[in-house]
Amino acid sequence: MPNTPVSQEIGWYLSGYADGEGCFCVSFSPRKKLLSQLEVRPSFSVSQNGDRAEVLSLFRKALGCGSVRPDSSDRTFKFEVRSLNELVSKIIPFFRRFPLKSSKAKDFDHFSLICSLMAEGNQWNGIGLRRIVGLAYKMNSSGKRKYIKAELLSIAIKV
Amino acid sequence: MPNTPVSQEIGWYLSGYADGEGCFCVSFSPRKKLLSQLEVRPSFSVSQNGDRAEVLSLFRKALGCGSVRPDSSDRTFKFEVRSLNELVSKIIPFFRRFPLKSSKAKDFDHFSLICSLMAEGNQWNGIGLRRIVGLAYKMNSSGKRKYIKAELLSIAIKV
Repeated sequence: MPNTPVSQEIGWYLSGYADGEGCFCVSFSPRKKLLSQLEVRPSFSVSQNGDRAEVLSLFRKALGCGSVRPDSSDRTFKFEVRSLNELVSKIIPFFRRFPLKSSKAKDFDHFSLICSLMAEGNQWNGIGLRRIVGLAYKMNSSGKRKYIKAELLSIAIKV
Repeated sequence: MPNTPVSQEIGWYLSGYADGEGCFCVSFSPRKKLLSQLEVRPSFSVSQNGDRAEVLSLFRKALGCGSVRPDSSDRTFKFEVRSLNELVSKIIPFFRRFPLKSSKAKDFDHFSLICSLMAEGNQWNGIGLRRIVGLAYKMNSSGKRKYIKAELLSIAIKV
């Protein structure tokens, strides 16, 4: 949990902001040197134009983790949490206490299940890894993905 | 005020959502048939992809005004309030009770001042109209405008 308790005001405000501008993402990278052949990278991020980056600092303060930095791909700033430990111990409990109200809540449910599976080490065996890939590809259906699901499953099947 | 009191939970959630995705706008159209030569149109809107339009209905319910409809310019849905009476009696009191926390709050301050000036009829005289144009052009500096400020002032100067 964050160092200081989050008020109802800040909690619901940030939940609403994240429901519009936040992203729960799980990305994959083939890594031949890894035993599992596939690196799984969950993250929570919120992007915003540089002239309104103050809310990103509010996220960092309230959630007690993550970093705020310029996004090299465009002129925005990004608040991002990539640490599995912080996702499990800080981000997920926050959005359980202040749940999203749009259908993005379904993405969050998949995301939190993936993080739980990873915290138990399921990404290191074929069955767990394929389950994680399957769950991840149910998320953010309007977004773009670097790899198609079948490519990743064909890697995961070898683990 | 809305028909039913808005809870702290819904109020702060919608404030956060609007801080990310909402827009307080004031647009202008030259109208030769109007005594003031210039139509002033304030509006509050929130856009969202159609697959997550449920939050827009939440805005309509909580604020007790406005409409939700497809935006013809793209594949989004839009919650929008254009009635000056509803902006003054419902939207502005809501964001005074649940203030934005980013620098968009400055846009809101200009917006609410413009609406107050309009409620007093200041758009019908040259001095008031020029003040409204000046305030509007301090807002949403990153957005695009159809007319440059000098064009509108040159119309307003004749009123």
